[in-house]
Amino acid sequence: MGNAVYTADIDVRLRDVDFMGHVNNAVYATYIEQAREAFFEEALDVSLVEVGTVLVNLEIDYRRPIEATDEVEITLDVTDLGTSSIPMEYEVRADGELAATARTVQVLVDEDGDAKPLPAEWRNRIGGE
Amino acid sequence: MGNAVYTADIDVRLRDVDFMGHVNNAVYATYIEQAREAFFEEALDVSLVEVGTVLVNLEIDYRRPIEATDEVEITLDVTDLGTSSIPMEYEVRADGELAATARTVQVLVDEDGDAKPLPAEWRNRIGGE
Amino acid sequence: MGNAVYTADIDVRLRDVDFMGHVNNAVYATYIEQAREAFFEEALDVSLVEVGTVLVNLEIDYRRPIEATDEVEITLDVTDLGTSSIPMEYEVRADGELAATARTVQVLVDEDGDAKPLPAEWRNRIGGE
Amino acid sequence: MGNAVYTADIDVRLRDVDFMGHVNNAVYATYIEQAREAFFEEALDVSLVEVGTVLVNLEIDYRRPIEATDEVEITLDVTDLGTSSIPMEYEVRADGELAATARTVQVLVDEDGDAKPLPAEWRNRIGGE
Repeated sequence: MGNAVYTADIDVRLRDVDFMGHVNNAVYATYIEQAREAFFEEALDVSLVEVGTVLVNLEIDYRRPIEATDEVEITLDVTDLGTSSIPMEYEVRADGELAATARTVQVLVDEDGDAKPLPAEWRNRIGGE
Repeated sequence: MGNAVYTADIDVRLRDVDFMGHVNNAVYATYIEQAREAFFEEALDVSLVEVGTVLVNLEIDYRRPIEATDEVEITLDVTDLGTSSIPMEYEVRADGELAATARTVQVLVDEDGDAKPLPAEWRNRIGGE
Repeated sequence: MGNAVYTADIDVRLRDVDFMGHVNNAVYATYIEQAREAFFEEALDVSLVEVGTVLVNLEIDYRRPIEATDEVEITLDVTDLGTSSIPMEYEVRADGELAATARTVQVLVDEDGDAKPLPAEWRNRIGGE
Repeated sequence: MGNAVYTADIDVRLRDVDFMGHVNNAVYATYIEQAREAFFEEALDVSLVEVGTVLVNLEIDYRRPIEATDEVEITLDVTDLGTSSIPMEYEVRADGELAATARTVQVLVDEDGDAKPLPAEWRNRIGGE
């Protein structure tokens, strides 16, 4: 793990549960998006609704089901920053047990959707090497 | 690509679009779940609500945004069947252009959530070696 | 019913089903939003993503559950147009049976979110008095 | 307002926001479902996933938009209990301002989906007349 670790609590909603009786696989992507938002607000003092980023890659390994009544916590780790990209790794825990691991690559974009360099201030704050 | 290719049309909903003005990253996972359901209904004559399967891995590469008014089509390809697992590859097209590629591994489970062997009939119908 | 009746087909998704095994109550609101979008595209030749409208009232009477495998069809009827408001009534059918009725009031807004008069062309096209 | 008032905090998610840049109208129904769940857990010591209830009516009056960064709080009030039905009223506040009011009627059902009488213990705990 790198040097910018952050932890976010997620409120599981009844609506997150699907026909199999567990949190639906797609909702994990929403949970880790929410962890990214918490990280941006905490570490960079900005909301993702105020900056333009797009996801270019998402990978999730599902380890065990999440129940509607579980307490969910996500640990987020920023790995090596690229010129425009922010790679992250996640551990999703449900009632303390590892429920999933995930990786994303997110890119900062301008109004045309083209990649643009990360601000120097972000690099300083995130502190990834 | 393997020998069990299937194509599904997806109706994009306004609700799928997020604060960035495009279909949200998590919704792609819902689209490919819907393609799996269409495949199960078509190829195996069964709905996923009638059989127990869980997703163990999901990977999505996002290539271009999907707009609310795009026509979305997903091509699904079953690759090598495991004892209990069904690996699939997907191409998501929006108005004919490649919008994402994805891979999943899905496992057939019993009522306790333990992996169980794929039925011989499924192997015959899917025809993957 | 008024004079601007329109029918939309809805693709039920597995993700729409909740822990009770039926389409979740909130998803009905998404279905009727999708019927509104279909109406706007068909009757007014415009997408809701291109015009600014907000919902000010929503009422749904749930009659019977909707299953994942049901065919869903929504009949939409524009009732009396207001200066800025478009009231609509809906009948949601699942496999031909009435599953819900609903009413909405939707208001056209400018960029500040203030109500603005409906264009004369819309009145002509919708034809409600 | 009756005598069983309860307050629930809702975590707004980025995914809740739609193409208009505000929390989508259907998501309000999810928020108040979550308030019901919090009420059931707190007042009746049971999760809605453990008891069978269905919604028969939902009405929402939207007063002002909810932003992704708003703090949302819902006040829930159980009004007159019926034989099998639990009517509720809600006030949804975003950053302290009234964003919506809502009413629901929820019915306790057996495994066939037929209404069944509310347990006496629930009546005692809820205390509605």
